[in-house]
Amino acid sequence: MLDKLLVKDLMTKDVLTVDKEVETVFAFEELMKNKISAMPVLDGEKMVGIVTATDLGHNLILDNYQFGTKVKSVMVTDVACVSPENTLKEAVCVMFDKAPGENIINQLPVVEDGKLIGILSDGDIIKAIKNEF
Amino acid sequence: MLDKLLVKDLMTKDVLTVDKEVETVFAFEELMKNKISAMPVLDGEKMVGIVTATDLGHNLILDNYQFGTKVKSVMVTDVACVSPENTLKEAVCVMFDKAPGENIINQLPVVEDGKLIGILSDGDIIKAIKNEF
Repeated sequence: MLDKLLVKDLMTKDVLTVDKEVETVFAFEELMKNKISAMPVLDGEKMVGIVTATDLGHNLILDNYQFGTKVKSVMVTDVACVSPENTLKEAVCVMFDKAPGENIINQLPVVEDGKLIGILSDGDIIKAIKNEF
Repeated sequence: MLDKLLVKDLMTKDVLTVDKEVETVFAFEELMKNKISAMPVLDGEKMVGIVTATDLGHNLILDNYQFGTKVKSVMVTDVACVSPENTLKEAVCVMFDKAPGENIINQLPVVEDGKLIGILSDGDIIKAIKNEF
């Protein structure tokens, strides 16, 4: 059953991350080159935030950032996360509950014992559905 | 059952589109402002292509486009579409089959009698899953 699947079985383990000292323009390039919509931000090994392609792209294209602005100045620090033992149902609820209005959060970092071990994206969930059909 | 749901019951009917003569930079701004990842391109009422935030963002940030480049010059013209009567299962298969490698297509225009009547996104599918739980 779909709702009983666990985050650890669906998540992408090879997570693209960015250091908090990287400039926003380079973080955005990295997101675009890898065709992903969000990247956790690290301070050493600790996840301290997340940046999304939508936020960075919007602000870069409108010249809202000063030259050299780093991701640590603009990242979202209140990151919606899940645990590897959460069910798909629980993860989908987090995607909705932590997003404003009708939106959903497309990427949920997966954290175990304070350490980032994966990311669960909408794409991962659609793959799971495909396998259930 | 999830696999029996129809595209017409899940799709977003209020589709944001862009005219083929619009400049890429303005199309990208529109995508970012509305936090969406792709927009069908219209020539009058006819859909002639699609542009994605990933493609436009990547090329704009790297200065790959000449000043004033219009969406008609860079849009994808071989658009993966679905019909409103397709099942969710069929739509998910299109998302996988028409994308390169391990990727999926996040947005499928919904076309009836040659006319664009909606768009089915990964977010719409995740909403459907949530309602099934």
